[in-house]
Order: sequence, then structure tokens, then C-alpha cells
Amino acid sequence: MRKAIALSLENIKNGGGPFGAVVVKDGKIISTGVNRVTSNIDPTAHAEVNAIRKASRKLRTFDLSGCEIYTSCEPCPMCLGAIYWAHIDKMYFGNTKSDAKNIGFDDSFIYDEIALKPENRQVKTIQLLPDEAIKAFEAWKNVEDKVRY
Amino acid sequence: MRKAIALSLENIKNGGGPFGAVVVKDGKIISTGVNRVTSNIDPTAHAEVNAIRKASRKLRTFDLSGCEIYTSCEPCPMCLGAIYWAHIDKMYFGNTKSDAKNIGFDDSFIYDEIALKPENRQVKTIQLLPDEAIKAFEAWKNVEDKVRY
Repeated sequence: MRKAIALSLENIKNGGGPFGAVVVKDGKIISTGVNRVTSNIDPTAHAEVNAIRKASRKLRTFDLSGCEIYTSCEPCPMCLGAIYWAHIDKMYFGNTKSDAKNIGFDDSFIYDEIALKPENRQVKTIQLLPDEAIKAFEAWKNVEDKVRY
Repeated sequence: MRKAIALSLENIKNGGGPFGAVVVKDGKIISTGVNRVTSNIDPTAHAEVNAIRKASRKLRTFDLSGCEIYTSCEPCPMCLGAIYWAHIDKMYFGNTKSDAKNIGFDDSFIYDEIALKPENRQVKTIQLLPDEAIKAFEAWKNVEDKVRY
């Protein structure tokens, strides 16, 4: 956790947001990540997403079971989703989403929005052509050698 | 939407999952994305995340206000988070998260988990060293030329 916090402090000096994350397996650091949204021009470049992407490349697997993540701040829903998709087992965090809100980051708002029904969210959401879209899912069912994750 | 659906079908043939997304601005396609989790060894490489990353690179901004996203399936929490962070205004989807569940994708489970308190989630979650972590947030408050997003 001290490493994640040090990264979050260092990243401010490097022109990024105050967030750092470290992926660990069997007590060893696999990867680190910092927030590079503005510097990389990438709204998905949060510390946790970056650390997970790097760990997957390094371990050559999209399944990070057996790994833990240390993040200087409680992850936003995007990063928490990434943690689930990567099958990370355990998460340690320093600051809370309320702390993030206090310095101007939208995490709490996005948590609230995700909990709403799509029709009540601020992002207008409309279903289109479900009868056509389902064809890809039907085709997927018939793929025999697919890789599950 | 027909383009997003066509991408989702095409991607199965290319060894990827049955998901496609298109970012549009002023009636013009800015970028497309497909699911490349297994082929890119990247658990965050969902169609929507990929399309958003490409659109940001192309438009040279992390703020995609004024854009819409067409996705062949209702986004998972990670992708919905990315849509919020990118400030996309409107979303069209084809298949639902229940349809995704029926073919073996965890979207519904992750929505349920995110709605729980951290202590009740399957990913064990522990707060560590908040007094040290907050120092980065305090330092952030004092940065004068920071870029907000």
C-alpha cells in the first residue's frame, strides 16, 4: 500500500491525477499503474485499469486469479468492474470514494447512476434492434472452441 | 446500431467475443471497437472501452461530450463507468445484460456486486493506511494548473 500511495504522490508531480495502484501475486509486485487520463488522452487510463492491463501482459493471461490489488483510492465502478473481469481475489484501498468526491472526482456520482434503472440515468439509454442483435449471441452459443473468461 | 451488430458477428469469426460498439458524433462514425479480451490478453478490452479509447485518440480529447455510443449489448459496469468518465451523452444498445448472462457473461453478477457494500462483496476489500493515502489528495488540492475531467 505504501508503494501505491507513493505512486499517487509521484504522479501529481508528473502531471497526472493523485491515484496509484499495484498488482501483487505471491507477495511480489507484478505491475504498477497511475492515472494517465489527461496525459494519455484516454478516459479509461485509471491507475487500476493500467495496472491490470500491465499485469495481464506480463503474466500472459487475462485471468489474474491469485492476484491482489493495492490501490491508493477505492476504485470507481469502471475499475471495480475491471477487477471483477480480471478475477482479482482481494483488494486493499487507502482513500474512500467520498474522499475522491471531496477533491472533485465523480466516483460517487457514477456509483449512484449505475444503481439506477437505465431509463432513470443521466446518460440517455435506448434499446434498438434487439431481434437483430441477438443473432450474434445465438452464433456465439454454437462456437465450439471458444475461450471463456 | 446495424454497424455495431455487424461488428459483433464479425468478431466471432475473428476469435473474439460477440460484442461490437461504435462511437458517433454529429451523425458520423468516429471509431469502432470489438471485444479483444482473449486475443489481446487484456481483461479491459471490451468493445465499448476500445471504441472510447480510439475515439479519444482520434478527437484528441478525453472528453467525448457530444458523442453517442451504439453498442450491440448493454454495457457492463466497467464499460458504463467508461461511458460516464468520457462524458458520452447518449447510449443505444441491442442485447440486454440478461441476454449476456444467458450466453455465459458475468455482467449481471458484477452489477449485483457493485451495488453491495464493499464488506459484502465476493472480492475481499480492506481499507489500509487512510492517513497516509489522504496526503496525495491534500497535495492535489494545492495543484494550481491541474486539468479537470
